[in-house]
Amino acid sequence: MAKVGVILAGCGHRDGAEIREAVFTLLALEKAGIDYECLAPDVEQRDVVDHLTGEAVKGEHRNVLREAARIARGKVRATSAAKASELSGLVIPGGYGAAKNLCDFAVTGPDCTVEPSVAKLIRDAHAQGKPIGFVCIAPTLAARLIPGARLTIGKDPATAEAVEKMGARHVECFSDSFVADEEQRVLSTPAYMCDASLPQIATGIEGMVRRLGEMIAR
Amino acid sequence: MAKVGVILAGCGHRDGAEIREAVFTLLALEKAGIDYECLAPDVEQRDVVDHLTGEAVKGEHRNVLREAARIARGKVRATSAAKASELSGLVIPGGYGAAKNLCDFAVTGPDCTVEPSVAKLIRDAHAQGKPIGFVCIAPTLAARLIPGARLTIGKDPATAEAVEKMGARHVECFSDSFVADEEQRVLSTPAYMCDASLPQIATGIEGMVRRLGEMIAR
Repeated sequence: MAKVGVILAGCGHRDGAEIREAVFTLLALEKAGIDYECLAPDVEQRDVVDHLTGEAVKGEHRNVLREAARIARGKVRATSAAKASELSGLVIPGGYGAAKNLCDFAVTGPDCTVEPSVAKLIRDAHAQGKPIGFVCIAPTLAARLIPGARLTIGKDPATAEAVEKMGARHVECFSDSFVADEEQRVLSTPAYMCDASLPQIATGIEGMVRRLGEMIAR
Repeated sequence: MAKVGVILAGCGHRDGAEIREAVFTLLALEKAGIDYECLAPDVEQRDVVDHLTGEAVKGEHRNVLREAARIARGKVRATSAAKASELSGLVIPGGYGAAKNLCDFAVTGPDCTVEPSVAKLIRDAHAQGKPIGFVCIAPTLAARLIPGARLTIGKDPATAEAVEKMGARHVECFSDSFVADEEQRVLSTPAYMCDASLPQIATGIEGMVRRLGEMIAR
């Protein structure tokens, strides 16, 4: 039976995984009848942000895997312990954590590097022909790791330019839809990269996950 | 225009608001075209639980309002600053936080007391004839504050007995549905009080929120 790995970057859009995108991903997987496992790197968060003020909290430390367990209700495994061969595909929700903890795009832009256990999982899954879905800002990971991938980060010109600089082909898209690179098996939906409603974001993620299921079945 | 207050108990089912229930509540409100505002008490959490191990973390402190801001994406106000007269109704997602931070039911059972700003908001809204929706374990708040309310906490006999001891009339219900006390304008759905799938939980919450909207319109 197909089992998809969902890579979470923590819990909270300013320093971890975007919570709503993560929950809609899990809902969409269950709706599509696809089994899944939550995964997260067992590393310290780049920062801890007070989500009320938007300010980083000096001296506070949180672990990405431990915080991801809040979304995963305790059922989450370290990306370093997972193997692409056990999985049928991957989905990576967004939030600043995807660009701060899974890679450092938020700091270094197109020169970013990806956290090693996450990079290995994505590279191996891609090499094994498994489809990978990227939400919101997470397509920066695809731009870095999957040369020439066709993807969307919504309509923001600066971010589009950055992913193209990394070698991706950017396609504009709104949050209620998604972009499919059938050849590379890369899927993406902009979610909170656009000013969208929750039903629109849920629709885009649901469509992307359904397509992921079709790609797995083929 | 109707504006519903959503009272969050933090962020994470073991020490705060159940994240998925909270997100499905916001999705259901947007789907029903109901404007909402997130609220949370500006108090320290009763405890901080490592969601990976399930153990309380000694010496760590988190603020309910600040953690709720992770789900609310920063847009959350203290319950002490909100007035029932500004709101058309309330919804209270579950998670242990509802029974640890909004009241102390998790510790004291049927002898529980409710956090003062939350108690005032619920009592005032109820006195003003506004409908209130309670998810998962949150109906314990209704049992405490709204004498004789007809409600569900799912099918767990011990919790059912406890809410009846507080004066509520308990009705068994599964997570894909909800219970409506039309007279008292109290709605409830069991969500994670039962072993249910995400689509079932989302369906129960969506149905309850839709009925809340109908009650507001009447």
